[in-house]
Amino acid sequence: MSRQFDIAIVGATGLVGGMLVELLAASDLPVGEVALLASAESAGKRLAFRGRHRSTQALDEFDFSTVQLAFFAVPEAIAQVHAERAAEAGAIVIDVSGAFAADQSVPVVVPEVNAEMLTDFRERGIIASPSPGSIQLAMVLKPVLDAVGLGQINVTVCESVSEAGRPGVDELASQTARLLNGQNPEPKLFSQQIAFNALPQTGAVLESGASRSEVRLALETMRVLGEPGLRINATCLRLPVFFGTSLVVQLETGQPLDAGQAVALLESAPGLVVVERPEGATLIGDALGHDAVWVSRVRADLSREQGLNLCLVTDNLRKGAALNCVQIAELLIKDHL
Amino acid sequence: MSRQFDIAIVGATGLVGGMLVELLAASDLPVGEVALLASAESAGKRLAFRGRHRSTQALDEFDFSTVQLAFFAVPEAIAQVHAERAAEAGAIVIDVSGAFAADQSVPVVVPEVNAEMLTDFRERGIIASPSPGSIQLAMVLKPVLDAVGLGQINVTVCESVSEAGRPGVDELASQTARLLNGQNPEPKLFSQQIAFNALPQTGAVLESGASRSEVRLALETMRVLGEPGLRINATCLRLPVFFGTSLVVQLETGQPLDAGQAVALLESAPGLVVVERPEGATLIGDALGHDAVWVSRVRADLSREQGLNLCLVTDNLRKGAALNCVQIAELLIKDHL
Repeated sequence: MSRQFDIAIVGATGLVGGMLVELLAASDLPVGEVALLASAESAGKRLAFRGRHRSTQALDEFDFSTVQLAFFAVPEAIAQVHAERAAEAGAIVIDVSGAFAADQSVPVVVPEVNAEMLTDFRERGIIASPSPGSIQLAMVLKPVLDAVGLGQINVTVCESVSEAGRPGVDELASQTARLLNGQNPEPKLFSQQIAFNALPQTGAVLESGASRSEVRLALETMRVLGEPGLRINATCLRLPVFFGTSLVVQLETGQPLDAGQAVALLESAPGLVVVERPEGATLIGDALGHDAVWVSRVRADLSREQGLNLCLVTDNLRKGAALNCVQIAELLIKDHL
Repeated sequence: MSRQFDIAIVGATGLVGGMLVELLAASDLPVGEVALLASAESAGKRLAFRGRHRSTQALDEFDFSTVQLAFFAVPEAIAQVHAERAAEAGAIVIDVSGAFAADQSVPVVVPEVNAEMLTDFRERGIIASPSPGSIQLAMVLKPVLDAVGLGQINVTVCESVSEAGRPGVDELASQTARLLNGQNPEPKLFSQQIAFNALPQTGAVLESGASRSEVRLALETMRVLGEPGLRINATCLRLPVFFGTSLVVQLETGQPLDAGQAVALLESAPGLVVVERPEGATLIGDALGHDAVWVSRVRADLSREQGLNLCLVTDNLRKGAALNCVQIAELLIKDHL
């Protein structure tokens, strides 16, 4: 008789939560009971999991001692409160919110890169799944770091509105429709009109001038790679794009690495698809709906000896969040539970 | 009796050409006769200039010996042929196409930065106005270079569809409308759907893997600053935005310069507006319809000692193209003709 695991999906009515429901249902994981949790206002909604319908329950009242695994796909402030409560009740928490990015007692895991860090989860019972930008960056830096080392890394992260959840998607959709009908776009969630505009900031701006998204990217990538001294400098933008996260990466290598060598290295790394078309890979043309991180425009930085440029795209709901959590759960169950 | 200058506007029915007509008409320049030139298909169209309507004439047949100044706002391949012809006929050419970016006998001018280079125009009779990205970058690098010197400069340029001319604007508009009506977006001009997508390449990709836009940005910025050894590394993206050009600049300074000092330096530089709101400046919220280059998110690069980050936005049709040309013409007439 094989073991079964009872699970909770926290934020089940959200975008990442919905993708977790879909991917967990399609996975080979030995899932027993499933609790779908949401805010009190969204409780009572009917969702299907592996052919059976369940009502969403209110997060506030849920007893986490009834499950072994809890997936958290809620904003940081909510995760901060309830993830600790779930872990204290004995559930192993896998969290995407970023609430534990700086917490050294919580491992930050991208299975293709640092599966070995999963041994560290028992102290707190919480495992962090990094941001979509951090996941892509760590996956592409890992083979380069191992082969030739890394110097300064400059990154521009282009976040889609879905990284701000369903309200972000609704805002871009409604502003676009309003503008096409000659109406005022009425910004609510974002500080400025997002339709046909680009915003040079995502997340709260800290006293240093950096945003939380930028600090999170650098911190999580260093932690996943196990290189606290790595020099990662990021700017995070918000684009008028519904889904997906794109990165422009401009890096300095420790030793020379030409574009051909870089392509060969990246092609053999797990989870990456390298596209050599001159026009590169795009969210809508390539990444959305797929599991990989797409790498393109791999080329020398012509301004210096050891510079390398590349562009990345991935589906922020899949490898950027829900898929990474499911992979962490698979690894946990296979090797650690 | 004051002098008058007869002028030609080549590409008068295009986006930059239309802005040239508007800005030249509103300027104090002593304009005599105005020839509005376009392709044979667009010839015969009626356009107003300072209250008088004129028919556009075919570029192919125009005799440039009848004008003293010719503004070229046409694609590179057309500029290559007709700008030389105009200059040989005795007109002074001001060209925005990029056809002469690498030509050392043609000065590349941003009046706020290198007005003194205008003395060099007589050899060929051609002056180049740089790309919208190069203009912004040169304007912001100049005061930093003069104060503390510059090391490696990494830039992500976000081009709007209008940088590909009117067909680019039409493609984003029609794809957006088609998608909102449940129809296939049908990419034509751009390699992939541009609506709600971001493309990691603009302009033809060269054998080195860099695009012409990326090479042009580095080359023009170095030439405007008079610093052929500057290390500028660029990635140019196309965003689903109608107007404006945005830059993410991540630079290394020659000597330490903190964010406060940088803001003070940039505030006193000509043509820049520094915005200290945490959320930064955006195209639609700030730059479009205005003449300045807007600088925001000026902050330290937390990953190293002498790193500085900032974001730029400007109206690509104004300071990015037509306004820069008008300023060059004003300087020419005042000091050199």
